[in-house]
Amino acid sequence: MASQYTKLQSIEVEDNLLLPYQVSNPTQKKSQNKFASYFYRVKGYIIKKWKILLLLMFVLLLIAGVILIPVLVLRYKTSTISDQCDEYGKEIINNAVQKGTEAYSRLSTLVTLFPGRLSGSEQLENAIDWIQDMMLDDGFDLVKTDDVEVTHWVRGDESATILQPYHRKMNMLGLGGSIAGNVTAEVIVVSSFDELDTLQDQVKGKIVLFNAIFTNYSSTVQYRSGGASAAAKYGGVAALVRSITPYSLGTPHTGVMFYQDGIDKIPTAAITLEDADLIQNLAILNQTVIVNLYMEAQTMPTNAISRNVMAQINGSTYPDEVVVIGGHTDSWDVAQGAMDDGGGIVVAWEALRLIKSLGIIPKRTIRVVGWTNEENGAAGGAAYAQLYTNETFFSIESDIGVTQPLGFNVMASEQTITDLQLIADKVLSPIKTTSIVEGEVGTDNGFLVSNGKPGAQLITDESKYFWYHHTAGDAMDKMDPSQMNQCVAAMATMALCISNWVGQLN
Amino acid sequence: MASQYTKLQSIEVEDNLLLPYQVSNPTQKKSQNKFASYFYRVKGYIIKKWKILLLLMFVLLLIAGVILIPVLVLRYKTSTISDQCDEYGKEIINNAVQKGTEAYSRLSTLVTLFPGRLSGSEQLENAIDWIQDMMLDDGFDLVKTDDVEVTHWVRGDESATILQPYHRKMNMLGLGGSIAGNVTAEVIVVSSFDELDTLQDQVKGKIVLFNAIFTNYSSTVQYRSGGASAAAKYGGVAALVRSITPYSLGTPHTGVMFYQDGIDKIPTAAITLEDADLIQNLAILNQTVIVNLYMEAQTMPTNAISRNVMAQINGSTYPDEVVVIGGHTDSWDVAQGAMDDGGGIVVAWEALRLIKSLGIIPKRTIRVVGWTNEENGAAGGAAYAQLYTNETFFSIESDIGVTQPLGFNVMASEQTITDLQLIADKVLSPIKTTSIVEGEVGTDNGFLVSNGKPGAQLITDESKYFWYHHTAGDAMDKMDPSQMNQCVAAMATMALCISNWVGQLN
Repeated sequence: MASQYTKLQSIEVEDNLLLPYQVSNPTQKKSQNKFASYFYRVKGYIIKKWKILLLLMFVLLLIAGVILIPVLVLRYKTSTISDQCDEYGKEIINNAVQKGTEAYSRLSTLVTLFPGRLSGSEQLENAIDWIQDMMLDDGFDLVKTDDVEVTHWVRGDESATILQPYHRKMNMLGLGGSIAGNVTAEVIVVSSFDELDTLQDQVKGKIVLFNAIFTNYSSTVQYRSGGASAAAKYGGVAALVRSITPYSLGTPHTGVMFYQDGIDKIPTAAITLEDADLIQNLAILNQTVIVNLYMEAQTMPTNAISRNVMAQINGSTYPDEVVVIGGHTDSWDVAQGAMDDGGGIVVAWEALRLIKSLGIIPKRTIRVVGWTNEENGAAGGAAYAQLYTNETFFSIESDIGVTQPLGFNVMASEQTITDLQLIADKVLSPIKTTSIVEGEVGTDNGFLVSNGKPGAQLITDESKYFWYHHTAGDAMDKMDPSQMNQCVAAMATMALCISNWVGQLN
Repeated sequence: MASQYTKLQSIEVEDNLLLPYQVSNPTQKKSQNKFASYFYRVKGYIIKKWKILLLLMFVLLLIAGVILIPVLVLRYKTSTISDQCDEYGKEIINNAVQKGTEAYSRLSTLVTLFPGRLSGSEQLENAIDWIQDMMLDDGFDLVKTDDVEVTHWVRGDESATILQPYHRKMNMLGLGGSIAGNVTAEVIVVSSFDELDTLQDQVKGKIVLFNAIFTNYSSTVQYRSGGASAAAKYGGVAALVRSITPYSLGTPHTGVMFYQDGIDKIPTAAITLEDADLIQNLAILNQTVIVNLYMEAQTMPTNAISRNVMAQINGSTYPDEVVVIGGHTDSWDVAQGAMDDGGGIVVAWEALRLIKSLGIIPKRTIRVVGWTNEENGAAGGAAYAQLYTNETFFSIESDIGVTQPLGFNVMASEQTITDLQLIADKVLSPIKTTSIVEGEVGTDNGFLVSNGKPGAQLITDESKYFWYHHTAGDAMDKMDPSQMNQCVAAMATMALCISNWVGQLN
């Protein structure tokens, strides 16, 4: 029909077309002369300036294209933002930010009753029980746990003491995965793996101190995770690592480390920025520094059984397609685990609870997952991905602290990143959570992303995050209720708009 | 002569005075009429508006007075700023700030070789030896030490562990002066002495946790210094104190405490903000909290001998009048003591060295003093005042950190505060160290002030000072070389201008 109509129209137009140089009747003579003169001037102008005019037409066409094509694409493309996203988003944000949520108080209860939720600990399993019970009380459509086999490392007593040139006890924390040891040796200080290679002949029998200044987490953390084997390769008897942080108040930071196959295992611990600098300065003053490192740490011969815990609201239209939101339930033993990552799991959980309490039924299933064992093995994330990759539509993890939300890091196609930007611009402007950038997702939903599913991570103001990351400083006093509420709003809105997305994301 | 001249002048003026209504010669008749008319109009105006005119004259007199009197007073008063203050001040500031000083590097060496300089420790005496040797090398006019008997408290092994509702080791520091103990008991949390009084019937046999939120140091520190005896008075078996700080990264803060006579001594320690809140939150959740406090701390039966260390540049005109500048050499055992108060003594010392290196001979003697035992007894300050109060012209201590200098707290007469403001405005504007206010001086020069001598304390930006005060976080990474140089400039300039002051300060 459309093409027929077009044809008819064009014929009509042709019939009525008056070409400028045609004489239509005699009374037009005078005006015709004038018109002809004008015509020739225009003709001359066209001949003279045809290149410019061509360019002008091209530019006009280009502008029309730039404006029209996206409009047409958006109008007719099969994948697009749901009409309800805007309305629901406003309702969610209004409720979370204006009326408030229980995120802060639930987190406070969680970390007060169950601080130090390290894999294999009673604390972690008690916390998971508590979360599951609360989720059942919340009346979600499905609440369940999946068993996950996890490593069981325990710290035991430990100390690091300067014995020479004076006696001085250092604040320290053994690194997760380290073996026990009781080593007294001279310290050699290096600032990088390169310097270690350069000084390799001097390493044998010594304790290597990796005193690398914090640049960013992913760059500097390699000394914590790989320092021990790097030192042992050249005959080092223990490895000390400057804590992975830009600022310290006498604060050691623990974290996981890995032994390289085929290299002797040596004990390894983090010391504070203050003590790392002290030892470095002693070395600069030509002082021989002797340290005793004592650690009772051990990885239990048998793995422990932990659990991923989850709850969901079933989708109305595509119940078998799941939008996953979550964080991890475990934390380091010395931390209360408020920021890392009690806040993450509680915010995701509270986001789901808010959607439910507003009576909103998403088109796809939205599931909150509390992954276990993120800190020293990531067996929870791996196990989840093994079971549920196929049904996953999208996943969002929150594991960088729940301070002021800024946006989302996304691992997905360019089109999906554009789509999420559309959602953020449309509904998340009131809480300024509109930064959608390609970037790393969480450790746990990273397994889903590795399996080819699009995913994201909530991005927040992390300016102080690494000050207390993996320390006794990760506690409730770092949490701000109103910032947590904004994180709830951001997670709930994004999850809902994705679950109601018209078409696919990839 | 002056009065005679004035008299002569006034006679001349009188002879030539033409009163407006006098006729001087006939040719003036016409103009006289006009003049008379004008005169009567003015007279009428005066009669009509005499009140306003009187007020106007009064205001003019007042303005003249406000401008003239201080000028005259300054011109003729016997006590005033020295002419050289301005010139020397510029030279000192230029050298300290533009060319730099050795303050940072000397402090780095001091705290690297001798961290943890607690009274009675080898570290403190080694540090004093080193300072004395360096001062001798610097070639000052007099370098000496005075023996001071000091308390000798040692920390020993210590721990605080939550045993119920779960097992959790806390970061803690025994308080200086505490006795040893091995106490396991239920914890009762109070936020103030008032609340303790209210709950006194529930205290017997319990560990009292003073969880007072930091307001300012002098208000909140009373729980650290007096908590143990307050708890023991009602039968408490140990006292835990929320660390005296507004911010924490799992950081316990030590400090001195005092037992009240006639009340049982009980062991006492500081725990972190994070753990204090945790225990409080457990109590709110109706959990019984049982803690074990283990401390091997002891005050040695015999006092130790420490020393005040000092060096000076003899005054050219009044060598027996001494301007004292200084800080304290001792620090808490766990701290490197960079801010508290290695920086203070080094900045004062470097100020004197700068004056000397510029070849400036002050009119009065300027002496740098490193007081000992400020942290747990203040025997150094007391001993110094006992020996040297009489010769003291003025004293300035630096013991609030050597960050950005802002001005000086002064304990002196109003006139002296005005005088110091004059100095600050004249010479310290380039480094914005112009805030001269009545306020607390240091603990050590406080003894001189108590004995009636005027004194001051260098005031700096202390916004983060209590974050690391009395902790393992008080280390070189908190120091800024350029801020230290500005402190040197401020101390040197103020000391020199005071030493060259014309007249007395009181």
